Amino acid sequence: MRATVMFEAGDVRIENVPDPKIIEPTDAIISVTRACICGSDLWPYKNMEHEDVGRVMGHEAIGIVEDVGSGVRTIKRGDLVIMPFAFSDGTCEFCHDGLQTSCVHGGFFGTMETAGAQAEAVRIPQADGTLFRLEVEKENELMPSLLTLSDVMGTGHHAAATAKVGPGKKVAVVGDGAVGLCGVIASRRLGAEQIILLGRHADRIALAKEFGATDVVSERGDEAVERVHELTGGSGVHSVLECVGLDQSMETAIKIARPGGAVGRVGVPQHESMPASEPAFYNNITVSGGPAPVRAYIEELLPDVLEGKIQPGRVLDRTVGLDGVPDGYRAMNERKAIKVMVRP
Amino acid sequence: MRATVMFEAGDVRIENVPDPKIIEPTDAIISVTRACICGSDLWPYKNMEHEDVGRVMGHEAIGIVEDVGSGVRTIKRGDLVIMPFAFSDGTCEFCHDGLQTSCVHGGFFGTMETAGAQAEAVRIPQADGTLFRLEVEKENELMPSLLTLSDVMGTGHHAAATAKVGPGKKVAVVGDGAVGLCGVIASRRLGAEQIILLGRHADRIALAKEFGATDVVSERGDEAVERVHELTGGSGVHSVLECVGLDQSMETAIKIARPGGAVGRVGVPQHESMPASEPAFYNNITVSGGPAPVRAYIEELLPDVLEGKIQPGRVLDRTVGLDGVPDGYRAMNERKAIKVMVRP
Repeated sequence: MRATVMFEAGDVRIENVPDPKIIEPTDAIISVTRACICGSDLWPYKNMEHEDVGRVMGHEAIGIVEDVGSGVRTIKRGDLVIMPFAFSDGTCEFCHDGLQTSCVHGGFFGTMETAGAQAEAVRIPQADGTLFRLEVEKENELMPSLLTLSDVMGTGHHAAATAKVGPGKKVAVVGDGAVGLCGVIASRRLGAEQIILLGRHADRIALAKEFGATDVVSERGDEAVERVHELTGGSGVHSVLECVGLDQSMETAIKIARPGGAVGRVGVPQHESMPASEPAFYNNITVSGGPAPVRAYIEELLPDVLEGKIQPGRVLDRTVGLDGVPDGYRAMNERKAIKVMVRP
Repeated sequence: MRATVMFEAGDVRIENVPDPKIIEPTDAIISVTRACICGSDLWPYKNMEHEDVGRVMGHEAIGIVEDVGSGVRTIKRGDLVIMPFAFSDGTCEFCHDGLQTSCVHGGFFGTMETAGAQAEAVRIPQADGTLFRLEVEKENELMPSLLTLSDVMGTGHHAAATAKVGPGKKVAVVGDGAVGLCGVIASRRLGAEQIILLGRHADRIALAKEFGATDVVSERGDEAVERVHELTGGSGVHSVLECVGLDQSMETAIKIARPGGAVGRVGVPQHESMPASEPAFYNNITVSGGPAPVRAYIEELLPDVLEGKIQPGRVLDRTVGLDGVPDGYRAMNERKAIKVMVRP
């Protein structure tokens, strides 16, 4: 089959690779009908060291089940399913707590260990726990929004949930990428009163406003901190969604939280440490977040997608076939596309 | 009057200083009947640079109201009161949220700005919001435990609360100082099932066991992490109370939390940064805590002290008069006393 393989920074190719096969009895194989390129795919696209065998990329997909192992109980051939970015058994103590990204039998798609979904097909370990069956037509117009439940919308929701967004809260979203935009949707959905987007790309800002952002701050660093304080009567916001993952964005996030506030971080950290002392400690700031257990959130978010109350699929502003994937990486890396959908 | 003045690291003296006076109409003056030396007083005792005027130390006290300003409404002469380590107006948005340590008109006792309570008397700014009136005899035998509500017991409780301790939870307490020991009391009180103390002083460990510690880990660093994982079936604890404030203790705290767990930190950070990436992010660890709003916790904790259900006063294992305070600092610094009570 054909798949997207990354060999090193900047080198993404469509290659012929062996078809995925059932290895464990708990596996399934799905043919991919929709996948996408993630902001987090841009980190290896910038930094990856050379690997001879390459890495089959992609961790977000919707597909049709083609085959299941002998131990699979709830998923069957022909099912239309969402593949969350992490696989999980659905039964361990962490899955039980709704933290499927820490499943004791879990792992992540699109790594050197587990091939990804920017491909014609993909092997799904722990199929019963991992896959979520959809009861819609496979060419439903909601497909882009449903696809976001595999990562980006669930991740924005996780940022909001761990930042304790709720009715009447003042919220700041750091980062205007696809996750930040979904963080705006999630904050609005959870009842935030004020949603300040920290970003500087006109197209993304326009979309954020449609999603419910009430204010925009395009400054950076201390100037951004000052602006957010001005916009919030001097105190800062209750909740900060950190959707970037850089040193400076994390420092800004902590500084714009009001005393007793919370930072929910979902940007994969490209830094080893974060501020511990002033103001994080003295202001009793809570820092939470991590890889989103999107599998746990699908049930909560799905009805709003099906009813059209939220339209996270709008962050997918470009669609390509498999051959267009390398161009898709380039477009996202150059900020010419927010997020690219792939139809293999 | 006589007061404890610190001039630089290691130089603590009992000096004659001017009597405190009402400055603002919202002030009160209390004569101090009980004070104590705090583990956090040992940081300037180790590191303070020379100050000609010196710093009147002490931020924990019980005393009798001697005078009140014209604007004080609820506190009157003769009241027996607890003085929390921070003063607060009791009416601002942060006090309203129960975060008195971030009061917009607040501040801290025993600083260069506001004289402290290891003295015969102390001026209390924002007396109505700050002081908590006790309805007990002033020589009640519960006095040591009541005194701990001014800081150390409330701080241990804050560590437990921000670490989300609750019924059935596995808990680790990092640090066997007075705050750590009160963290053990708080964890037991909140229903923890397993309480692992990380400490290495025999006398403190013995007291911790009486307070409810179920396990003791005396290793440090990676060996401590390994031991805690052994004691918890491999996963780590739900809640970590970080009661030290050093780089290594914070790193250990994050490593012994199970995925989805929380670290409540109350040790004043002597470090600028903390781990941001692995495992804090990947395990979805929440880091919370800061200066404890002990004023908010007195109402919750007081009944258990009055009924003898908790006996945090037992951490006060030495009592001195004002003249004995410099020796008290030495004893705590050399780990010969857990915490020293002062009867001026």
